[in-house]
Amino acid sequence: MIRITGIHEISVPLEGNITNAVVNFSAHDVSLVAVTCDVFRGGKPLVGFGFNSIGRFAQPSILRDRMIPRVLAAKPDTLVTGDGNSLDPAAVAATAMKDEKPGGHGDRAGALAALELAVWDLNAKLSDVPAWRTIADAVSRQVEQPSVVTYAAGGYYYEEDSLGRLENELRGYRELGFEAYKIKIGGASLESDMARIDAAVALAGSGSRVSVDANGRFDLQTARDYLKAMSDRQLRWFEEPGDPLDFQLMAQLAEDTRIPLATGENLFSVQDARNLVRYGGLRPGRDIFQMDAGLSYGLTEYLKMLEVLESAGFDRAQCFPHGGHLINLHIAAGLGLGGCEAYPGVFNPFGGFSSACTFDYGRVTPSEAPGFGLEQKAELIPHLKRLEEKF
Amino acid sequence: MIRITGIHEISVPLEGNITNAVVNFSAHDVSLVAVTCDVFRGGKPLVGFGFNSIGRFAQPSILRDRMIPRVLAAKPDTLVTGDGNSLDPAAVAATAMKDEKPGGHGDRAGALAALELAVWDLNAKLSDVPAWRTIADAVSRQVEQPSVVTYAAGGYYYEEDSLGRLENELRGYRELGFEAYKIKIGGASLESDMARIDAAVALAGSGSRVSVDANGRFDLQTARDYLKAMSDRQLRWFEEPGDPLDFQLMAQLAEDTRIPLATGENLFSVQDARNLVRYGGLRPGRDIFQMDAGLSYGLTEYLKMLEVLESAGFDRAQCFPHGGHLINLHIAAGLGLGGCEAYPGVFNPFGGFSSACTFDYGRVTPSEAPGFGLEQKAELIPHLKRLEEKF
Repeated sequence: MIRITGIHEISVPLEGNITNAVVNFSAHDVSLVAVTCDVFRGGKPLVGFGFNSIGRFAQPSILRDRMIPRVLAAKPDTLVTGDGNSLDPAAVAATAMKDEKPGGHGDRAGALAALELAVWDLNAKLSDVPAWRTIADAVSRQVEQPSVVTYAAGGYYYEEDSLGRLENELRGYRELGFEAYKIKIGGASLESDMARIDAAVALAGSGSRVSVDANGRFDLQTARDYLKAMSDRQLRWFEEPGDPLDFQLMAQLAEDTRIPLATGENLFSVQDARNLVRYGGLRPGRDIFQMDAGLSYGLTEYLKMLEVLESAGFDRAQCFPHGGHLINLHIAAGLGLGGCEAYPGVFNPFGGFSSACTFDYGRVTPSEAPGFGLEQKAELIPHLKRLEEKF
Repeated sequence: MIRITGIHEISVPLEGNITNAVVNFSAHDVSLVAVTCDVFRGGKPLVGFGFNSIGRFAQPSILRDRMIPRVLAAKPDTLVTGDGNSLDPAAVAATAMKDEKPGGHGDRAGALAALELAVWDLNAKLSDVPAWRTIADAVSRQVEQPSVVTYAAGGYYYEEDSLGRLENELRGYRELGFEAYKIKIGGASLESDMARIDAAVALAGSGSRVSVDANGRFDLQTARDYLKAMSDRQLRWFEEPGDPLDFQLMAQLAEDTRIPLATGENLFSVQDARNLVRYGGLRPGRDIFQMDAGLSYGLTEYLKMLEVLESAGFDRAQCFPHGGHLINLHIAAGLGLGGCEAYPGVFNPFGGFSSACTFDYGRVTPSEAPGFGLEQKAELIPHLKRLEEKF
């Protein structure tokens, strides 16, 4: 029977100084978690790595003071699958959440996610397969081709020459081979945002290749003003027009427009996702769900969200998780989601994929490395080594 | 103009080993925060103290790594009221939340609350008045009598002789002068919970003096089974029957029963409270709202919640904040809420009021000490001293 021998975490700063309509990311960091076990490969114990996606913060004290001690104190046989040959991510997650009250799905959802995703990485390494395969097997899913549709999420605001730099940025993505783009809106006037949108559409060749993201900034009237101005651009989607918990605003916009609406990256639990489905007025076959396992208690919780969506008549092809990185690439590949974000060149060391992934006309295929393949991402290697020094 | 000279925090464990239907509290702790300033009284700088209520956890890293540095980095004139003679709690809160994304109202809501409430304590001390008066003045409210209706919240499960100990516990509260009680349900079978309820009603003399609290444990069917069994007991209220975010369940129960329903202690933002109002089916003049400033970004956010409630036709007399301690006593007194919880003898050092408060037929009146009067609570004094050693 496999046993966890240790759980370690470090906080890793995000690189870059970029801004959306609401926040500047220069002080953001991420928890990188390692789960070690008593199974050896090549003379070294196997290690699973996970992190809590991008855009929120590292959670050192929630991990150190609450979750890790609970898991390390649990009887090892309560944390494994039936045959004892792998860890049970749902059991580890439930143990880590012992004595946590219901509700309040915020920072702790990211803390647990980093830990729970490290368990998936470890399980894949135990089977010596890429994580997408372990994920697909866990839900009895056949995957013919683990390639994932991505789009370049960027289009941030810059302090100087914002429009010129936006065009350069998107041109760079086009040269990398991306065929679809997402840009920020809501950080400038409607007029200058429309200039940004039109520049992006011109570069992309079609509105259907451009999504816009307001990061939750608008009230109903402003969102309607933007929708009206954008109505003939045939955009791919309009992301987070208002506060992520303002389901009524979402339902009102869904009545107004045929433009697909996207949301969910700031909903961190199945209960919140269920409320979005109940009250948000979103449309099967049209709108986009962006819940991110790395911010929402991990893949165990994400699978429950997917169940809620599919029971309500939505298709997993409508799911494009927030967070363009290797973990979500494997999740999207293993579960057959619509796609996932890519952040070419930003949010390092976590953002983006690795040079071992293949990239073809906007589709990314994970490498054959066991687990999420984080060890193949050059920018991450020094941080993995720093974490390993704590073992 | 007043300037903040430092912000310090320590984590303080909750005493006791008690259990509700969902969690055991033995490992819970609380963040105690001090805000120091450049105004001196009696040769010492004035200090404001706050804490993040009871029942969740201390938030050392969210305070230390995110919020405190933001406030200390801000220009002092952005943190004060117009005359510069006191701090502006809303401005401090907004500064502490810089670069935090919308949604995800969990742990960080408690972290900010401890800090924001310390600002209220400091402001009251600057005016040399009890905090309830500063709070009432801030919302231009006349307070004739700052006494607050309380009830003894207890009735936890014990591992041995749970029913006998429950009766002893409630008898003790009655001897202390309490006239109303709240007990836990949902941690045992319906049958033995009904025996608990009947024992409590017998001791209280009337069902109208007994509330029951399921701590979010039930699904719809179980909640309905309990409602049916309790229907002729004329209970005061039925608290948190289901998951705090399951607004649909709440609306269904509100259609079923005349028993007042209570909820809100696990909703930590005005957005969540607005969704409760929109979708929870709660009834003006009947149901009970228990949002707790100490868990939800502080009093600035709580005032916005109150506005949402009153705009929707509810009365502030329906508000009984979760968390029986001095801070909520002053908030309930200053804002004229329905009342607040009391925890006689549990959740020390934060639970309960101080010996300087007066207590009469279930009504508590805060002392005249400036601020929240935390310095008068014997159990807290060693912790305040420990925090002061960090200045």
